Amino acid sequence: MRAAFFEGNQTFRVGPCVPIPPGPGQVQIRVEFCGICGTDLHLFHGAMAHRLTLPHVMGHEMSGVIASVGENVEGYRPGDRVTVRPLDPCGKCPACQRGHSHICHNLKFIGIDTPGALQGLWTVPVHTLHRLPGSLTLRHGAMVEPIAVACHDVRIGEVQAGENAVIIGAGPIGVLIALVAQARGAHVLMAEVNAFRIQLARELGITAVNPRETDLAAQVNERTHGAGADVVFEVSGSAAGSEMMTKLPRTRGRIVVVAIFAEPVKVDLFRFFWRELRLAGARVYEPEDFEKAIQLAASGQLPLDKLITNVMPLDQLEAGMRQMEGGGEVMKILISCGN
Amino acid sequence: MRAAFFEGNQTFRVGPCVPIPPGPGQVQIRVEFCGICGTDLHLFHGAMAHRLTLPHVMGHEMSGVIASVGENVEGYRPGDRVTVRPLDPCGKCPACQRGHSHICHNLKFIGIDTPGALQGLWTVPVHTLHRLPGSLTLRHGAMVEPIAVACHDVRIGEVQAGENAVIIGAGPIGVLIALVAQARGAHVLMAEVNAFRIQLARELGITAVNPRETDLAAQVNERTHGAGADVVFEVSGSAAGSEMMTKLPRTRGRIVVVAIFAEPVKVDLFRFFWRELRLAGARVYEPEDFEKAIQLAASGQLPLDKLITNVMPLDQLEAGMRQMEGGGEVMKILISCGN
Repeated sequence: MRAAFFEGNQTFRVGPCVPIPPGPGQVQIRVEFCGICGTDLHLFHGAMAHRLTLPHVMGHEMSGVIASVGENVEGYRPGDRVTVRPLDPCGKCPACQRGHSHICHNLKFIGIDTPGALQGLWTVPVHTLHRLPGSLTLRHGAMVEPIAVACHDVRIGEVQAGENAVIIGAGPIGVLIALVAQARGAHVLMAEVNAFRIQLARELGITAVNPRETDLAAQVNERTHGAGADVVFEVSGSAAGSEMMTKLPRTRGRIVVVAIFAEPVKVDLFRFFWRELRLAGARVYEPEDFEKAIQLAASGQLPLDKLITNVMPLDQLEAGMRQMEGGGEVMKILISCGN
Repeated sequence: MRAAFFEGNQTFRVGPCVPIPPGPGQVQIRVEFCGICGTDLHLFHGAMAHRLTLPHVMGHEMSGVIASVGENVEGYRPGDRVTVRPLDPCGKCPACQRGHSHICHNLKFIGIDTPGALQGLWTVPVHTLHRLPGSLTLRHGAMVEPIAVACHDVRIGEVQAGENAVIIGAGPIGVLIALVAQARGAHVLMAEVNAFRIQLARELGITAVNPRETDLAAQVNERTHGAGADVVFEVSGSAAGSEMMTKLPRTRGRIVVVAIFAEPVKVDLFRFFWRELRLAGARVYEPEDFEKAIQLAASGQLPLDKLITNVMPLDQLEAGMRQMEGGGEVMKILISCGN
């Protein structure tokens, strides 16, 4: 089997790889598809280098079929179609002890801190598995992980049917949040500055505007008869986004910070006081978010084929990264790892 | 009767005032004590000048006895001992319609937007009244309003018995939050840079440290065995405070923004993502906070006599403001309006 080895310096080498046999409590998966995440692109550009052991195998948005199981594995057997929740918590820290193991103080993110799915055969702990139903193609199964992110964000945002939600930033996660919120019955308005992304969001059935051309706060007020939005998702990670996010919510409205802000940014804390706003950070997902994502993906409610803009072979991984660099013309690239 | 008229330019004129007879749905109160709030000091210094009609009568932390009642007033009669929740909402805006009339879009704050309690006879709508029990002195009754602020903040912070709370800023509201949180059974750590306030907080039975001399985050981690604080109250309104507030909470911990930040400040949004922190703004109070405050004040649990550092006659109001300017040597000044 083959793997894509990241060697640093924005370089991948695709070549033979010795499969790791599954130990006790582990399974070995024949990986079918693996999506490229924005985080992978950050790794490619040199971010989080201290967490990688080179050569490193990336990838954590995947689908596949179990090839073999190790000792003490119950409930799964070869041939089962699965995806992986790529979190390996310590089980001992204060976060784990409170039941927040997804944000464990010592969390290992599989695909960053340990080898990922961009290889033919991938060995992972059985506790990371979620079963894919027969009604879900493996192509769509590789979208479960990012959909689970969106399900987590929407859950943290407590989005209810009939509510007005604003999503700032129409990258893959922003678009999925919009789609998941719409599936919950929310009225969604999306803010994005990139013309390709605005157009794609519209093609996906999302109302999207450019906040550089439209007075977003005025539009939200008009849509809500002066009340303001029930919930705002900040997914852009931009200073403009963090400035905008406090202008939009109604009294006691909610803000969910999804984006990863590398540096502190100016935030209008007065607005939190004045309207008694609430803000919550949201990170990765919990098992129930994966189950919800699988259910949504299998229901056919989400336009996944339009979100998957490219499917490429493993050898083309570096080219895929280059295509993503522009941020514009692609949404989700899947790598076919099975050939 | 007399009133203290604010004439702008940091000047009060104390002189005769024609009492306003209570109209329908109003009561006239013989004011006994009125505390000077930090907001009054801001008005004295020229803040919110556009909201004042000069000469303006300030004051909204009061206690008194009903002198007369207007038409259609039920449930209250002359001789009743009361305090006033100084909020006059419009009843029609989106906030009011959602039941958040305390943060009404068109809220009139009595004592800022309309005349306040620093006068002998004060006429207010009956819906603002809360009855003071016989077990509560009128001196302590004038402390109900700031205690209600603290009760609101602690309620928004969802403080539970046994939890670890950190309060940043030991002004009157910060100290009251600490005392109310302790009354709920929380373990409180207070951070303050002013030596007088640290000492006063300690005399009130609060553990207080100077974050310029102590590594506050390390101390919180030590107290919580590495977990972090359950809840942090930002009451300082300082850049140092807003920087510190995100360093202290545990995973899924809460931050309550109580202070009024005049300008946007840098906030570490990454930390919200990383630990899935939550932040809520808290403003004024709701009726249940007043009832809780009255109950707490009457219970004798709070060291109110130590918090009231000065009682002065109405003529000394300007001198009281001057004393407060330093921010150091006084905690709460009450003005005796009854003489």
